[in-house]
Amino acid sequence: MDLVNIRDLFRSKDEYLDTTVTIGGWVRSLRNSKNFGFIVVNDGTFFEPVQVVFSNVLENFEEVEKLNVGAAIIVTGKLVATPEMKQPFEIQAEKIEVEGASTPDYPLQKKKHSFEYLRTISHLRPRTNTFEAVFRVRSLIAYAIHKFFQERDFVYVHTPLITGSDCEGAGEMFQVTTMDLANVPKNPDGTVDYTKDFFNKPTNLTVSGQLNGETYAMAFKNIYTFGPTFRAENSNTTRHAAEFWMIEPEIAFADLEDDMILAESMLKYIIRYVLENAPEEMAFFNNFIDKGLLDRLNNVVNSDFARVTYTEAIEILEKHNDKFEYKVSWGADLQTEHERYLTEEIYKRPVFVTDYPKEIKAFYMKMNEDGKTVAAVDCLVPGIGEIIGGSQREDDYDKLLARINELGLREEDYEFYLDLRKYGSARHAGFGLGFERCVMYLTGMSNIRDVIPFPRTVNNCEL
Amino acid sequence: MDLVNIRDLFRSKDEYLDTTVTIGGWVRSLRNSKNFGFIVVNDGTFFEPVQVVFSNVLENFEEVEKLNVGAAIIVTGKLVATPEMKQPFEIQAEKIEVEGASTPDYPLQKKKHSFEYLRTISHLRPRTNTFEAVFRVRSLIAYAIHKFFQERDFVYVHTPLITGSDCEGAGEMFQVTTMDLANVPKNPDGTVDYTKDFFNKPTNLTVSGQLNGETYAMAFKNIYTFGPTFRAENSNTTRHAAEFWMIEPEIAFADLEDDMILAESMLKYIIRYVLENAPEEMAFFNNFIDKGLLDRLNNVVNSDFARVTYTEAIEILEKHNDKFEYKVSWGADLQTEHERYLTEEIYKRPVFVTDYPKEIKAFYMKMNEDGKTVAAVDCLVPGIGEIIGGSQREDDYDKLLARINELGLREEDYEFYLDLRKYGSARHAGFGLGFERCVMYLTGMSNIRDVIPFPRTVNNCEL
Repeated sequence: MDLVNIRDLFRSKDEYLDTTVTIGGWVRSLRNSKNFGFIVVNDGTFFEPVQVVFSNVLENFEEVEKLNVGAAIIVTGKLVATPEMKQPFEIQAEKIEVEGASTPDYPLQKKKHSFEYLRTISHLRPRTNTFEAVFRVRSLIAYAIHKFFQERDFVYVHTPLITGSDCEGAGEMFQVTTMDLANVPKNPDGTVDYTKDFFNKPTNLTVSGQLNGETYAMAFKNIYTFGPTFRAENSNTTRHAAEFWMIEPEIAFADLEDDMILAESMLKYIIRYVLENAPEEMAFFNNFIDKGLLDRLNNVVNSDFARVTYTEAIEILEKHNDKFEYKVSWGADLQTEHERYLTEEIYKRPVFVTDYPKEIKAFYMKMNEDGKTVAAVDCLVPGIGEIIGGSQREDDYDKLLARINELGLREEDYEFYLDLRKYGSARHAGFGLGFERCVMYLTGMSNIRDVIPFPRTVNNCEL
Repeated sequence: MDLVNIRDLFRSKDEYLDTTVTIGGWVRSLRNSKNFGFIVVNDGTFFEPVQVVFSNVLENFEEVEKLNVGAAIIVTGKLVATPEMKQPFEIQAEKIEVEGASTPDYPLQKKKHSFEYLRTISHLRPRTNTFEAVFRVRSLIAYAIHKFFQERDFVYVHTPLITGSDCEGAGEMFQVTTMDLANVPKNPDGTVDYTKDFFNKPTNLTVSGQLNGETYAMAFKNIYTFGPTFRAENSNTTRHAAEFWMIEPEIAFADLEDDMILAESMLKYIIRYVLENAPEEMAFFNNFIDKGLLDRLNNVVNSDFARVTYTEAIEILEKHNDKFEYKVSWGADLQTEHERYLTEEIYKRPVFVTDYPKEIKAFYMKMNEDGKTVAAVDCLVPGIGEIIGGSQREDDYDKLLARINELGLREEDYEFYLDLRKYGSARHAGFGLGFERCVMYLTGMSNIRDVIPFPRTVNNCEL
């Protein structure tokens, strides 16, 4: 069908003004008088809708004036400038075909619905202003991430979703099986007979692609992953989902400093890309979702991120312990309240906190010379706290093996990972960015359920 | 660290010639004479390695000349043109730091290894020529797909991986659970008590994001998905994996013709992008993996795809039934041998076959006026057969509901899907492209295990 996107009408206005155009879209609202009426039409390609003026010269005037909100129509008419109005132009309809009617009980009438209600109709909510904006921005952020890494010749690696081992030991996992749950095959001793399962062993859904990603960084130097990860955590918060996407770049011949440079450039790149490519959506978020959003994001783009070690950060925060619910002390992990205080009150810009106590970080992080801290880094941003966590990786075979044994991990699960330290080991580092947290940060949306098309949380797996 | 990528040396040669550069990479081979030697170094950023010349002026000459294949080194030296040689330049080493040694038992010695063997060391195989080429091209194809759709303002939708219903009824699925398999909670009647499971009901891994994607197409007009899908099929072939990625665009206010135009432009775009951005890798595949590859791909880029209805195709193929193992007849699905005959022998270019009998296609495809066929399309390409399958979707509420009932599907599972036909239904269409099949097609690789970083197949879920 030969239709023009409403986005193109707005973006290439001069090309279309005073010509006859045909658009297809959905009725957002309709008001009519005796012999004429106005329809606000949105086709989903652009945040702003277009106004269509129609009159009783239309053959099907009576059908059109009775259209319900939500109806799909195809409109042909002249695009005419409206300099005296809020919108830059309107379409004077010569023909309106009803592609698909709607009904008076259409759930999205022209009134404000709560986000809670809209979650119950996740198949329809992208037709509202807020969710149209959220999910277009989500798409743009995803693309900005690919663009950033590809322009720098990073190789995109699809790490596996189904995995045979709990590699990071990170939290609870979902099991994957083809066995009949009503009748699980058992061994004589009563344990599960996994030789009857699809993969001939127990398998889970991945919690991180990092270890697999490292194997590719040791071949391609610079790689990134961007894929789904899973946590079977029984936590019903506004920040946790059972299924979410992660970005995990990994760079070889690189140390913690390189890692921070990469993280800072990436965040700035994403924000700039979205501000440039979705100005209407971002203005909407700033006006209706989160008043300080644009100031905050512009501040991030224009700041050099601060740097502080964990030990220094603790010293600073201890002076303000009266302000915190959880008191800080060396050795304890930072809580969100501490993270936000550092980035919002002390530095008033993003800050990298480095060199955490080894006890509160993962086994694969590179031991510092003090023997007490590891080359880890968290990036804290105003308004949210931690947005990125990363580290330089332990690249020394003996130290890594010692750490695996110290923590009681099974050496045989990490043979492939140890191989990377045996055959041409190289300094390397990486970080993880939770994609949904990034979308929340850029849109100001405060519930993770509202930035995932079909969210999966405890007791909730609809559509 | 301030290193130059070998890619940049090749791509911006003139900028670096006769300057001192520092690279980090891995030893692919080393040969030495009494007082000097040559090291071939690859850093993974470019398909071609760089040759490093070193001599006994190096402080650590003895260490360097004894390096094993696979060692990681950092080389500083002058980049010098070598017009008389095969390679355009070499680095005359002033300094070589050993970043990480390797051992004589490094599994990737400078000899040809079988793909079967390399599959057993999936963490190391991207360090070989073939797999370096495969996985860089895989990354470029993924990016080309995003670029194609984003340049056309399609919205990228992340459809869910964990799903509460077998929506397409397509094949066997993996179950997802957090219940203890050794001790599955049961109801009094012996059935599984899913109220004890994470989502409070049975859940599976998705086989397609299409139905979810459609809901977003009815909001954004043009969308695409690009994510993992799963099949628990017990088939051990060179073309099936249990976990693979799919691309599923969906376009509203669009019919089967629009769908074909989109599919053709997308395929041509991807091929052009890879030919332009990975000429070295593509030449390698053409020389060592699949002799006719470049001719075939160039032919696709330069052809208008042919069109034929299923009914016409059957008439044509019936005349050649003596050549087929399976004889064709109206009503039966086309086998790969028939598909390849059509595209390779009859049309000698890609061909769209349309309007299949409804019995062999999915319930959601739009019924044609003949009442016998549906508006389905398969795109067949020389060398492989079907690469894309798509359809216009049934947009009529009553017809869709009738079809759901006719096939004995549970109406309540499709309420959200029926809603799309109730509230502003619009003609729409879409297709699915199996990402791995696309990578195989562009690289000439013949086993799906060799185009997936860590493949998952029956009885195989390593690393």
